[in-house]
Amino acid sequence: MEVKRRKTKIISLGSLKIGYTEPIYVQSMLKNPLTNFEKVKKEVKKLLEVGCEIIRFAVPDRESIKYIKLLKSYLYLTSKELKKFPPPLIADIHFDPKLALLAMEEGVEGIRINPGNIKRSSLKEIIKEAIDKNICIRVGINTGSLPKVISSRNSIDAIVNYVLDLIKEIEDFGFTNIKISIKDSSVLNTIKINKALAKKTDYPLHLGVTEAGTFLSGTVKSSVGLGILLSEGIGDTIRVSLSEESYKEVLVGFEILKALGLRQGINIISCPTCGRCKVNVKEIAKILEEKFSHIRKNINVAVMGCSVNGPGEAKHADLGIAGAGNYFLFFEKGKVVGKGKFKEALDWISQKISHLK
Amino acid sequence: MEVKRRKTKIISLGSLKIGYTEPIYVQSMLKNPLTNFEKVKKEVKKLLEVGCEIIRFAVPDRESIKYIKLLKSYLYLTSKELKKFPPPLIADIHFDPKLALLAMEEGVEGIRINPGNIKRSSLKEIIKEAIDKNICIRVGINTGSLPKVISSRNSIDAIVNYVLDLIKEIEDFGFTNIKISIKDSSVLNTIKINKALAKKTDYPLHLGVTEAGTFLSGTVKSSVGLGILLSEGIGDTIRVSLSEESYKEVLVGFEILKALGLRQGINIISCPTCGRCKVNVKEIAKILEEKFSHIRKNINVAVMGCSVNGPGEAKHADLGIAGAGNYFLFFEKGKVVGKGKFKEALDWISQKISHLK
Repeated sequence: MEVKRRKTKIISLGSLKIGYTEPIYVQSMLKNPLTNFEKVKKEVKKLLEVGCEIIRFAVPDRESIKYIKLLKSYLYLTSKELKKFPPPLIADIHFDPKLALLAMEEGVEGIRINPGNIKRSSLKEIIKEAIDKNICIRVGINTGSLPKVISSRNSIDAIVNYVLDLIKEIEDFGFTNIKISIKDSSVLNTIKINKALAKKTDYPLHLGVTEAGTFLSGTVKSSVGLGILLSEGIGDTIRVSLSEESYKEVLVGFEILKALGLRQGINIISCPTCGRCKVNVKEIAKILEEKFSHIRKNINVAVMGCSVNGPGEAKHADLGIAGAGNYFLFFEKGKVVGKGKFKEALDWISQKISHLK
Repeated sequence: MEVKRRKTKIISLGSLKIGYTEPIYVQSMLKNPLTNFEKVKKEVKKLLEVGCEIIRFAVPDRESIKYIKLLKSYLYLTSKELKKFPPPLIADIHFDPKLALLAMEEGVEGIRINPGNIKRSSLKEIIKEAIDKNICIRVGINTGSLPKVISSRNSIDAIVNYVLDLIKEIEDFGFTNIKISIKDSSVLNTIKINKALAKKTDYPLHLGVTEAGTFLSGTVKSSVGLGILLSEGIGDTIRVSLSEESYKEVLVGFEILKALGLRQGINIISCPTCGRCKVNVKEIAKILEEKFSHIRKNINVAVMGCSVNGPGEAKHADLGIAGAGNYFLFFEKGKVVGKGKFKEALDWISQKISHLK
């Protein structure tokens, strides 16, 4: 099963190209308001460390606008420090079109608007500015905030057609650097809506299950919903909504893509442990997962508890450790190359991974 | 998108019927060895509290056999205390066929074996006992422990045919109370193998991605892999393998099924929070999720941070709270019925959920 991406237009968001020949990018959204900039700095740093590729943030008021330039500078400097490329910024704007114009002036690479809650004359002004500055517009609709006449029809077609009509309005102003997202809090609706949308448009799609919940339920809903769509080739950028710290959204996002072979990264195969296990698999797997989450190259690492499936699985991996009594056996490309307890095993495998990356 | 289950034989595991007209059951496996019975008791109690429906455990030696009756009694008593039905037990046995015979004598409802590592004469003896005692046999193969001649062919068909040949051997002894599972640590292989298997047999299938990893990566891999298969109607029991406490496997399992509308339960729609949010959504959502994880009836509860999508989403839910400044507004069937801070909001909604269940 190889995933075959759906053909789309290629759009640009700052220096990123988005669409079917490009990687599927992982996005997150700041949890802290820009106005609390000390917290934003910490949040952004963590996002960069785990490899977040697009950062969105809410612009609820004029006060926030003042912080955009500061955010851009911080992003630039911190990315340089971490030897990464600074991710493009998307300003998330509702109701007040003036905020969209101001955000674009401050240098964001994209804006997210719901044209349904913006007057036609203001929309025209926004588009004109977006054309001038080569900015990307994400038309982002949450089904929770649809006009009553649409939501009352309760039909997928009504929603999709409503959004395509909004897109048509924007196209009429001569603008096509558009990404579309329609989000719903139900996994099944998210799947249905995006499948229908994918048939009717060739704009890139941003996927997310909205208000997905806690770390546990949000991770499951996003993995199921996005996983099914992505496996059918639908989706060009993704965001995992969690009522959790934003960097965890990025970790989950990459895990979803890696599970389907859509992005590369470290793959830790660790066994669930059972009555046979006498070594601490859970702890060692967790440490490795966090320590090497930023790797974007396929490395298979097995952390196995026992002698039933352990050595077999560990052999298939690039690197592996498998419990044998109170010890771990160390495997490299299928061969036992050493043996040691918890700390020795952790040190051995960490060093090996660092050399591989 | 309604999931249409694949047609299967109906088999029995103790008093549970398993197959396409029956619910998809959530299974877990004990992490503690039976011989450490004090720990097993705590683990089993937690599994029962979150609604685990089938419990598997490893039987690595004769010593473990002695604890099976004790486990059965503890399960019976604790289930009664919690007003639940005691889940059937599956003994997981490798290499030593005598252990399978002994486990069946001690009263387990099912055994999991890999007939590939049992001599034909011993297999016959096991099947005879299983027929006599009406025991369910799960033929469970991990691709990590396939015979070299099969795994070296590296083809889905070779694996599926190998397993179906093993099934044929068992059928030749006159036995059909069989559940099949083929597990792989790769999500894509798991999907491919089970799709191929589903076409060639009508036995119920048990699904799992094996050695799926930590809470994060294991939850993602299982949700993506099992989610895709289940959405196509494949899968009759599931187990989420995590290098984590076993009750979390059950929580994740039910979330996957709920996401696809395959089981009922509480659905907490909580927003990811952004710069607009001034209330503690994460905390309140987490508390509610854990407190009401055992509910098996559809209740939609919205916990929203702000006034953009918040009230809209909260209105669609049976119950909802949505941030408005530092307060939460309380919603019931779309109407605002009150207002309060964190503790009042939590108390109000907890009480409402308790009345609904």
